[in-house]
Amino acid sequence: MTVDQAEIGAMRRALEIAVRGPRGVNPQVGAVLLSPAGEVLAEGWHHGAGTPHAEVDALSKLAPGQARGATAVVTLEPCNHHGRTGPCAQALIDAGVARVLYAVDDPGAASSGGAERLTAAGVEVVAGVLEGDAHALLESWLTVQRLGRPHVTVKWAQSLDGRAAASDGTSQWITGPAARADVHRRRAGADAIVVGTGTLLADDPALTARHPDGSLYDHQPRPVVLGARGIPDDAAVHRHPLPVLHRDGANLFGEHAGDDRASSLLTELRTLGVQRVFIEGGPTVASAFLRAGLADELLTYVAPTLIGSGADGADHPALRSLGVSSITGQIRLRTVSVEPLGDDLLIISQPRPADERADDRADEGEK
Amino acid sequence: MTVDQAEIGAMRRALEIAVRGPRGVNPQVGAVLLSPAGEVLAEGWHHGAGTPHAEVDALSKLAPGQARGATAVVTLEPCNHHGRTGPCAQALIDAGVARVLYAVDDPGAASSGGAERLTAAGVEVVAGVLEGDAHALLESWLTVQRLGRPHVTVKWAQSLDGRAAASDGTSQWITGPAARADVHRRRAGADAIVVGTGTLLADDPALTARHPDGSLYDHQPRPVVLGARGIPDDAAVHRHPLPVLHRDGANLFGEHAGDDRASSLLTELRTLGVQRVFIEGGPTVASAFLRAGLADELLTYVAPTLIGSGADGADHPALRSLGVSSITGQIRLRTVSVEPLGDDLLIISQPRPADERADDRADEGEK
Repeated sequence: MTVDQAEIGAMRRALEIAVRGPRGVNPQVGAVLLSPAGEVLAEGWHHGAGTPHAEVDALSKLAPGQARGATAVVTLEPCNHHGRTGPCAQALIDAGVARVLYAVDDPGAASSGGAERLTAAGVEVVAGVLEGDAHALLESWLTVQRLGRPHVTVKWAQSLDGRAAASDGTSQWITGPAARADVHRRRAGADAIVVGTGTLLADDPALTARHPDGSLYDHQPRPVVLGARGIPDDAAVHRHPLPVLHRDGANLFGEHAGDDRASSLLTELRTLGVQRVFIEGGPTVASAFLRAGLADELLTYVAPTLIGSGADGADHPALRSLGVSSITGQIRLRTVSVEPLGDDLLIISQPRPADERADDRADEGEK
Repeated sequence: MTVDQAEIGAMRRALEIAVRGPRGVNPQVGAVLLSPAGEVLAEGWHHGAGTPHAEVDALSKLAPGQARGATAVVTLEPCNHHGRTGPCAQALIDAGVARVLYAVDDPGAASSGGAERLTAAGVEVVAGVLEGDAHALLESWLTVQRLGRPHVTVKWAQSLDGRAAASDGTSQWITGPAARADVHRRRAGADAIVVGTGTLLADDPALTARHPDGSLYDHQPRPVVLGARGIPDDAAVHRHPLPVLHRDGANLFGEHAGDDRASSLLTELRTLGVQRVFIEGGPTVASAFLRAGLADELLTYVAPTLIGSGADGADHPALRSLGVSSITGQIRLRTVSVEPLGDDLLIISQPRPADERADDRADEGEK
């Protein structure tokens, strides 16, 4: 089935208006209705959770019967489930739409199947129109659908030898200005930023995403503090433009004990519309998410410095227990990129799935 | 003073024959004597400690009086001290040499001053002829003269989070074949390779430099074992082509206690003609040399893996105490290169002098 220029143009327009809707729990979707002659009849977009989907929004702008024989151009496969709004596929059928073009398949277990329902009702369906553009638009939301939770970035800064602080606990001046600017830029791409109370009490971070001149990025991550201890009344985080979410993360501290807590925090954040979480630290919180297998992307800022342990063995490693008791259980990574940032190095990696971790490395060691 | 083509050619020849001498305590030096007409009268090179220097070796091939008015072309400034062989500068003066060209200044406190002595005696002296080539030839020896000890490379392999082994002590398969081949290639560039008895007993390393097919490199580093414990009779190191040097490194283990021991080992190795030392590990030995400020080059092989500590806090960091008690005392590094080796990363760095370590990093941390 061919797609004509008017339809391609309508899909571009649908992608354009999709971003009028909020980024959150629901996807940003746009829809354009075309007459059989290729004229635009109506446009619609999804205004957020609990409101009509894009197709229904567009149909609502037409008089009864006006959509008969029309073509619906939608950025996401029309849904097939009875949520708060009824299945869009059925609404299109009921309105007499003759042809539906969409960009991306609906990945939802409950909501997918719209294309099938449309086809079964005799509607002509074309999938994958400008699919790449729609994927780029929906990337974070699609990730949440695929993972069943927000995308998690775990970030830490360390000396070359893997320490976050000297043996007396002092830790300033590890990474330089370029690395810190990079962190802020990436914070601005997240919807939530998570720290433990230990880091909060030690560093009093603002948890905002700031330009080098101190001004705020337009998009700010919601600050989340994990830990049983209270947040001081005069903490800098209270001046964050978004309200602080404070959850008890005390049981993150034991081996494995925190895994369920990390997971349920992510579930809660998802219901709040959070698609991307930035785990800022410190070592206990970062290790808990890694140990639980709840890290999709690792940002390791390596400063060109050595710290070592204390003479008494006191140690402040950047990561603590990861649930690895023997070398065969190590968390193997795929290196995505290695980038110099001023004097520092940013290593971006992803945990490899457990079944990929066994490899062909010889067992002769470095003898 | 101009240098003509015959003289440049003679310097190239002197550099060529210099390498006939052994690399060791003394420098590799070559000399060519030219007649006033530019014809080669004689060639000489330094055959090793206690034998005549290159200039004297060349002069010895001429009849008395034959060097009168000649030009001596030497790769290193003629020496000015009474060692086992007498000052070469005086020998050239006595032989009636009219002109001396050399490539590199003698850096020795006792042996330098040859050019001055020659000039004072009315001999024309030109320094710096093909200096770059001669520097490349003499690099290791010049380093020993400058440092007063052999050049020290400290190498270690670690997970991204700075661990050398899992909490149960298992450590195989951290780095891959490309990293291991690189280590062997670099071992072949060293004159001695140092391990602690802990590493020796745990891994039974051969301490040879081997090609990937298992065959030996032509140049092998002398194996050195540090530690109070004995070397087992059946240890692989006994099959090394060079004899094992075993020194008590027991007092390397305490904070600072090992610094003098590390230094005196280097002094001993220097007297054995060792110009480049490769500190292979493990963490205790590597940390002792770093702590003592006796590391010129650091090779950090970083495997894309995370290990963490044990659930009980048991930990196998790649480096232990470096004598850093507060963050202001951290050992700042200059990154020389970052190179991917298979899945691993080789970070080459150099410790920055203590007076360079203070820098302009802001104290705001990563808030």
